[in-house]
Amino acid sequence: MTRRGASSVPDLVARARDGEAAAVARLITLVETDSPVLREVMAALRAHTGRAHVLGITGAPGVGKSTSTNALVAALRADGRRVGVLAIDPSSPFSGGALLGDRVRMGDHALDPEVYIRSMGARGHLGGLARSTPQAVRVLDAAGCDVVVVETVGVGQSEVEVAGLADTTLVLLAPGMGDGIQAAKAGILEIGDVYAVNKADREGADRTRRELRTMLSMAERPEGAWRPPVVQTVASTGEGIDGLLAEVDRHAAWLAESGELARRRTDRARSEVEAIALAAVRERWERAGGSDLHALAERVARGDVDPYAAADEIVAGT
Amino acid sequence: MTRRGASSVPDLVARARDGEAAAVARLITLVETDSPVLREVMAALRAHTGRAHVLGITGAPGVGKSTSTNALVAALRADGRRVGVLAIDPSSPFSGGALLGDRVRMGDHALDPEVYIRSMGARGHLGGLARSTPQAVRVLDAAGCDVVVVETVGVGQSEVEVAGLADTTLVLLAPGMGDGIQAAKAGILEIGDVYAVNKADREGADRTRRELRTMLSMAERPEGAWRPPVVQTVASTGEGIDGLLAEVDRHAAWLAESGELARRRTDRARSEVEAIALAAVRERWERAGGSDLHALAERVARGDVDPYAAADEIVAGT
Repeated sequence: MTRRGASSVPDLVARARDGEAAAVARLITLVETDSPVLREVMAALRAHTGRAHVLGITGAPGVGKSTSTNALVAALRADGRRVGVLAIDPSSPFSGGALLGDRVRMGDHALDPEVYIRSMGARGHLGGLARSTPQAVRVLDAAGCDVVVVETVGVGQSEVEVAGLADTTLVLLAPGMGDGIQAAKAGILEIGDVYAVNKADREGADRTRRELRTMLSMAERPEGAWRPPVVQTVASTGEGIDGLLAEVDRHAAWLAESGELARRRTDRARSEVEAIALAAVRERWERAGGSDLHALAERVARGDVDPYAAADEIVAGT
Repeated sequence: MTRRGASSVPDLVARARDGEAAAVARLITLVETDSPVLREVMAALRAHTGRAHVLGITGAPGVGKSTSTNALVAALRADGRRVGVLAIDPSSPFSGGALLGDRVRMGDHALDPEVYIRSMGARGHLGGLARSTPQAVRVLDAAGCDVVVVETVGVGQSEVEVAGLADTTLVLLAPGMGDGIQAAKAGILEIGDVYAVNKADREGADRTRRELRTMLSMAERPEGAWRPPVVQTVASTGEGIDGLLAEVDRHAAWLAESGELARRRTDRARSEVEAIALAAVRERWERAGGSDLHALAERVARGDVDPYAAADEIVAGT
């Protein structure tokens, strides 16, 4: 435990479940920083998780992710639901992870005790998001959030990651962000459960929506599969946000009815467990032979050994 | 070996080194598909690698990456250099990896025997790009390419990956892709060695360049460190491309003189070896207990066990 406050893990979990924001924040810090008590925290949270709906929000820079998250949080609060928000920022040397303070990002909700907001840096290392975000989601889930929103910058790999974390993945687009082929290149067509064309008051919004629908309709989906809806929003004014939330809720209901929720969560748990186990193996290598690894890498870089042969040496030493 | 052609690995490598495009293509397929002869291929390539300069090109969708790659390839060819291009597409259900044929993407160079072009799908799985792209780079390197261009869609995680692969990372921006804060959110400020504001004939290009320079100048860099230049280009007309290439070459020269090239390549080899070794461990888990892993994931999803305790079970069984 941290010395300040001197709370035990069970005590922190109890306070988080009572809705104490400081306890929630402390627990997220503990899971984010690979604290020595991480395992104890995870064990203590276990019995209280699985209730929250996890909504991933992604899209290219500039589509209005923060504004849309803000508007969705307002709609969820108007509906009386408790909300957690995890905003993932790729690490930046200028920000140390989170570029803007939470209050700046989510100014409308900073003082609402039923909304937990947390910026998480991906810390530059590959798979960092994959490793600590699920644990932070568990904290917010255990703290009684009805919905946990995971907002991530990015297109490509990190999008695939957020889709892996979420029960429902919302993909945002905006008019004029490039044509349909660009959208497809960004790999977004495979991951969305719900699509929103934001900035729908701008020129080209109808075209973007039409193109997106056409491309989505080209995918072969089995009978009974979910067909991702496309809605239009103007997040800055709140226009279309209630409709968007209705589609998210409809998807949540479909997930539960179809059995897909259990399947997704099992897949997610599997990736999570694998990621933790792989990290443990990697740490063992670092501890056991950090300098060996460096010497081996130098030999590979010089062309004295090929990378597969080098990897065999490491695995043999596991 | 594949039955068609019935070439041995040493024969394929010899033919690739002689500049035979079909042999290069076959070798890339072998390393991309985790073929049983992958290890043999890597061992055979080892002695012939380390000469090519690896240029990573990245940026958000719509900035003109393919057009810029095309223009840079033209400039490199005009200079008499042999070029390899790896275009990374996140997998898409609509494309099976590569959305457009190589000829469509890089039409100007499709018939030039001194240019190898290959689209690679990231195959949806995490770390897929990290695993097979370095091997494909080695194939092109061994085939005598002076420059290997790795063009990747994406912002965020996959950008960090491309920076990990490249000797020189070129980050493209375009005017009107969102303000400076958006650029910083996308994590691009930490990875570029050279920046180009493409579509410099459009409104806002000067502002984008100015903002970018200001943000770059805020980073603390030690004495003697490389200071990333910002150039302006109109890739569609070729304007500014020679100047861009000159900056890339200047960076290549700096890398060699400063000793940074060896350091980067050692770091890269280390990540590569670790990724291969981790994949081997993971495959061992799958083979040894794929169904155990699924049962364990179901228990985690149901909340019967926490993910860290589950991971301990797997690691203990390694």
